[in-house]
Amino acid sequence: AHVPYSPPRYPEETMQQRSKDFYTLMNQRRSVRFISPEPVPRRVIDDVILTAGTAPSGAHTEPWTFVVVSDQETKSQIRNIVEEEEEMNYRQRMGDKWVNDLAKFRTNWIKEYLDVAPYLILIFKQTYGILPNGKKKTHYYNEISVSISCGILLAALQNVGLVTVTSTPLNCGPQLRLLLKRPANEKLLLLLPVGYPATDATVPDLKRKSLNEIMVHI
Amino acid sequence: AHVPYSPPRYPEETMQQRSKDFYTLMNQRRSVRFISPEPVPRRVIDDVILTAGTAPSGAHTEPWTFVVVSDQETKSQIRNIVEEEEEMNYRQRMGDKWVNDLAKFRTNWIKEYLDVAPYLILIFKQTYGILPNGKKKTHYYNEISVSISCGILLAALQNVGLVTVTSTPLNCGPQLRLLLKRPANEKLLLLLPVGYPATDATVPDLKRKSLNEIMVHI
Ligand SMILES: Cc1cc2nc3c(=O)[nH]c(=O)nc-3n(C[C@H](O)[C@H](O)[C@H](O)COP(=O)(O)O)c2cc1C
Ligand SMILES: Cc1cc2nc3c(=O)[nH]c(=O)nc-3n(C[C@H](O)[C@H](O)[C@H](O)COP(=O)(O)O)c2cc1C
Repeated sequence: AHVPYSPPRYPEETMQQRSKDFYTLMNQRRSVRFISPEPVPRRVIDDVILTAGTAPSGAHTEPWTFVVVSDQETKSQIRNIVEEEEEMNYRQRMGDKWVNDLAKFRTNWIKEYLDVAPYLILIFKQTYGILPNGKKKTHYYNEISVSISCGILLAALQNVGLVTVTSTPLNCGPQLRLLLKRPANEKLLLLLPVGYPATDATVPDLKRKSLNEIMVHI
Repeated sequence: AHVPYSPPRYPEETMQQRSKDFYTLMNQRRSVRFISPEPVPRRVIDDVILTAGTAPSGAHTEPWTFVVVSDQETKSQIRNIVEEEEEMNYRQRMGDKWVNDLAKFRTNWIKEYLDVAPYLILIFKQTYGILPNGKKKTHYYNEISVSISCGILLAALQNVGLVTVTSTPLNCGPQLRLLLKRPANEKLLLLLPVGYPATDATVPDLKRKSLNEIMVHI
């Protein structure tokens, strides 16, 4: 069945104010690698995940699982797994060029935020689904869909004043999947530590491209 | 250089109100395939693209190009290319299973919105960059980064009351890249027609998964 759809419509002036305000809000977003241990209301995290779940997805497969970790012991285990793999990544796997491209971020294999942040959100993509009859269900474009949903999640975090760093823990997926008891059809896509920024948090002094560097109008 | 970072911080009650309000806003988003030809202020579209450009990206490569098409002739050419390929997709390439999975959306190869919507936004991923010395620059995780940026773009559209349908025109990338004169390092990822919804717009009557179907708390 199809149903009528008529979302709210704003006068042009209101649209212009709203588009500017949302840009200002989102332009303040930065990847923050120094996160405060202060607790964050659990209900806010629930809303953020619900918001991520409003994303579009290929053929409405909703191919995402958000694992929210606040248990201290589990966070420490995650930190151990990630730091061990990341040390090998930096020392052996990534190569000089990649390590060099990361120099300006001053990142390395030590990831304190992993057991300091009140929440870790591990975003899994479901590479396929399971139908009631046990057969596999194709998840068209699952990685793109889950990444879009992560973009909406980042907007939801920014909107409430929380910070994260979008991270891709190279080679850690299989171990983290087992630790978190996720099924074989799920693959780790992104790991986001979430909290308030530490009071002395710093970020690399990056600039963003201007509109005419990212947009072409025809 | 690293610089201090201290974004606005809200009291807990404000956070809870903001997270709920943003969820309510985003939960109203739907993929709309019936778009009104009414004009939309160009400045709003500029802000939406700027907002998409605030997304994080692997090693800050910002690997996205947003081609915004309002020229009627170009829109018609895009429609021709997409409908020709999509007819072959539906009739030959996708297979019965895929076509069947799409039945509930009542989509087919006719895409009126492609020359009716005031704007088409074609999102290209830059699979690599070009350094000043002419060498290739690696764009780590470019598809994930561009998809995240699309998620933020969808939030920005929803925030101003505009609609779109996130679409992936199968097999149309090369022809559209040539039509739009984009360089060889750019690949079409997504095509979004943007405008107000048509007054008689309908959407498939879909439900979204509940929180406990998408979130696991540990
Ligand atoms: C990666 C991706 C590809 C999609 N491709 C198409 C498409 O080619 N054509 C189309 O009509 N809808 C497409 N969609 C839209 C989905 O069908 C839609 O998001 C889904 O049915 C859920 O509906 P909703 O967006 O209204 O919540 C796509 C969505 C995503 C995320
Ligand atoms: C797909 C993706 C993967 C990333 N991986 C990492 C990572 O593993 N570790 C990290 O510290 N930052 C990671 N980042 C964050 C980027 O370095 C950051 O987004 C970029 O430097 C721009 O800075 P900004 O987010 O503050 O605007 C990643 C970002 C994206 C989008």
